[in-house]
Amino acid sequence: MISQTVEYALRAIVTIAQHEGQPCTAQQISKITQVPAPYLSKLMQGLVRAGLTNSQRGLHGGFVLTRKPAEMSILEVVDAVDPIQRIRECPLGISTHGSHLCPLHQRLDRAMEMVEKLFRETTVADVLAEPGSVTPLCAEKKLMMVKMNLAKQKPATTKKRPKTKKKG
Amino acid sequence: MISQTVEYALRAIVTIAQHEGQPCTAQQISKITQVPAPYLSKLMQGLVRAGLTNSQRGLHGGFVLTRKPAEMSILEVVDAVDPIQRIRECPLGISTHGSHLCPLHQRLDRAMEMVEKLFRETTVADVLAEPGSVTPLCAEKKLMMVKMNLAKQKPATTKKRPKTKKKG
Repeated sequence: MISQTVEYALRAIVTIAQHEGQPCTAQQISKITQVPAPYLSKLMQGLVRAGLTNSQRGLHGGFVLTRKPAEMSILEVVDAVDPIQRIRECPLGISTHGSHLCPLHQRLDRAMEMVEKLFRETTVADVLAEPGSVTPLCAEKKLMMVKMNLAKQKPATTKKRPKTKKKG
Repeated sequence: MISQTVEYALRAIVTIAQHEGQPCTAQQISKITQVPAPYLSKLMQGLVRAGLTNSQRGLHGGFVLTRKPAEMSILEVVDAVDPIQRIRECPLGISTHGSHLCPLHQRLDRAMEMVEKLFRETTVADVLAEPGSVTPLCAEKKLMMVKMNLAKQKPATTKKRPKTKKKG
């Protein structure tokens, strides 16, 4: 019911939101979300086009959210990449039905309406953390943050010193 | 959100149910539901395997429901052809999450749970007709019933008169 495209786009948005304003490169997002780079690239284009993320160029460039996570709904993310297809007219093109749906299509549309409503009422902030719950994508994220912090601590020119010391 | 496979299978079940116990051939179902014959054939195999329809062979053979429409849920039809994929474990395989979903996957699973519940509580009888509503697939169905009645009125040995070709 929920496409891979939607699942991947939500993972990407959550990852960027977790970086709290610090730009997140496509490579980092791909690693954390486990989304293949070419697929992610397409998704990010859609999210930028929809005005949900900005792409900043340069040395410390990357993707950032255009709004606070609490001001962005899950539905906006879904709509940017694979919108929920509501049934507005008879899918069989029966002229006497038109926009007056039969009970079958009414029920199918009601299912989609319910999902749409849930996603509209859920913000990105809502899925970032809930008390007593695990953090989305946390294992990969923690690993990545450790690597990023290590990289920051080192001066750009520092070379690895070969390990020679042995205590024994 | 609702796959074409699900939509087509529901159309087929509704069509058979509308025939009220009278066997419905694959050709008739294909015509009424606007589902291409090879696609329909695959779907019908799934519905027979799931025990929702029986296939009766012979001159007046065709598909019939194995139960009354009021005793068959929409969810059973969906499950027979393209089951709703609930999220039971972390889709990213994060070992610390396991079956304890993060808020993102909790929400996605909640959406699917809601749809599953709606479909479980809706029977085939529910979507056949509702007061003041249009009948599912009615235009094609009426046309088909007229043709079937006309065919019944003709003796079995009647042959089609060859069409005289128009040359232009």
